[in-house]
Amino acid sequence: MSSVEETAPATAVTASTGPRSARSRVRRVPKRAAYDGPTIHAILDASLIGHVGFVAAGRPIVIPMLYGRDGDSLYLHGSVASRLLRDLAGGVDVCLTVTLVDGLVLARSAFHHSMNYRSVVAFGRAQKVEGDEREHGLRVISEHLAPGRWDEVRGPNDQELKVTSVLRLDIEEASAKVRTGDPVDDEEDLTLRVWAGVVPCSLAWGTPIDSADLLPGRDVSPSVLARRYP
Amino acid sequence: MSSVEETAPATAVTASTGPRSARSRVRRVPKRAAYDGPTIHAILDASLIGHVGFVAAGRPIVIPMLYGRDGDSLYLHGSVASRLLRDLAGGVDVCLTVTLVDGLVLARSAFHHSMNYRSVVAFGRAQKVEGDEREHGLRVISEHLAPGRWDEVRGPNDQELKVTSVLRLDIEEASAKVRTGDPVDDEEDLTLRVWAGVVPCSLAWGTPIDSADLLPGRDVSPSVLARRYP
Repeated sequence: MSSVEETAPATAVTASTGPRSARSRVRRVPKRAAYDGPTIHAILDASLIGHVGFVAAGRPIVIPMLYGRDGDSLYLHGSVASRLLRDLAGGVDVCLTVTLVDGLVLARSAFHHSMNYRSVVAFGRAQKVEGDEREHGLRVISEHLAPGRWDEVRGPNDQELKVTSVLRLDIEEASAKVRTGDPVDDEEDLTLRVWAGVVPCSLAWGTPIDSADLLPGRDVSPSVLARRYP
Repeated sequence: MSSVEETAPATAVTASTGPRSARSRVRRVPKRAAYDGPTIHAILDASLIGHVGFVAAGRPIVIPMLYGRDGDSLYLHGSVASRLLRDLAGGVDVCLTVTLVDGLVLARSAFHHSMNYRSVVAFGRAQKVEGDEREHGLRVISEHLAPGRWDEVRGPNDQELKVTSVLRLDIEEASAKVRTGDPVDDEEDLTLRVWAGVVPCSLAWGTPIDSADLLPGRDVSPSVLARRYP
């Protein structure tokens, strides 16, 4: 997160276990950076959507996309008629970024306001997958968003598979950045007569709403009741 | 959102009032597209963070950033020492995308699963601002995230302003995409014995947590009690 507090001096660098180059190295506040697989995977698994960036005609485009993770690969999908999918399938460089906002960090000074968050920036190239991997990729995406749902519903038929592109993005390198905890104020501001702290936030799931065309006798599915969504 | 349901046929195109070119025209499911200022502004105002994409060394990079909106301009900020800010301030093309997830759309078939969401994709170039506009930009960002907070806290001093870069991104073109409502299933799937509907979701704010170093007598600020966060 680029925020005013980002200007605070960096004091430490987290140990690295993953691939790492200048492209994915976190430069600002490196004490908040992590490059290990478990940290990166946990953040990817906890986000509903990713923001996928690529270059088209020399210009950046960022599109929100659903995804699912299988090891160090991410699956994406879309219509075969989609320009986006065609652009991505061409082996171009892709940057997929996910961000979970965990709270507002309210300091005594405007400068030290910040946000608690978890983010991952992942780089790789997408390739179209064929054969059995297509349905596997769709299942991975579905299970990411709605665990257990895939086996409750009608699976894709040949026509649906035909009009759906499935891409696999093998992560070449990635970094995570995490901020937690209190505001960090200047010593001399602590006596100011203003409250400081954190207002936490998170995604909250509401009560399932029946589809207007739902026929009688279709109770809310087990996977929906379990609500194990990201 | 690129999702399986994106392959559903498009049936209508929303009237356009804003700038529009091939770059920002929504191709997939154009009935979900909008280009008018009020729709785009409302979505930008409702999101906490943006995903900012740009091209560095020919490759795409997407970074989550705080922002604030003033008319058709967005303010960004960060450390003067930040490579990100330097890259952005160089007049490069920028794509800022925001996405609000409103619910999972659970259909009777895997293929028609989707998501309810509101997103904006905005294009422009960022420029560094100077003089009084710097503090104005910081206030706009602060008020976007925590309305009323700016006047409760100590404002930025000269040293803090010196180490902070403020950028203005004038939106050249933008498009919004919105999905709402029920799953759209195939007629022949309606009799399947499986529940279908929407599980709504939204960002929820928790109880403010005092900073560990909070001195006695500093009650939670009025702006925090009002909780008019995006």
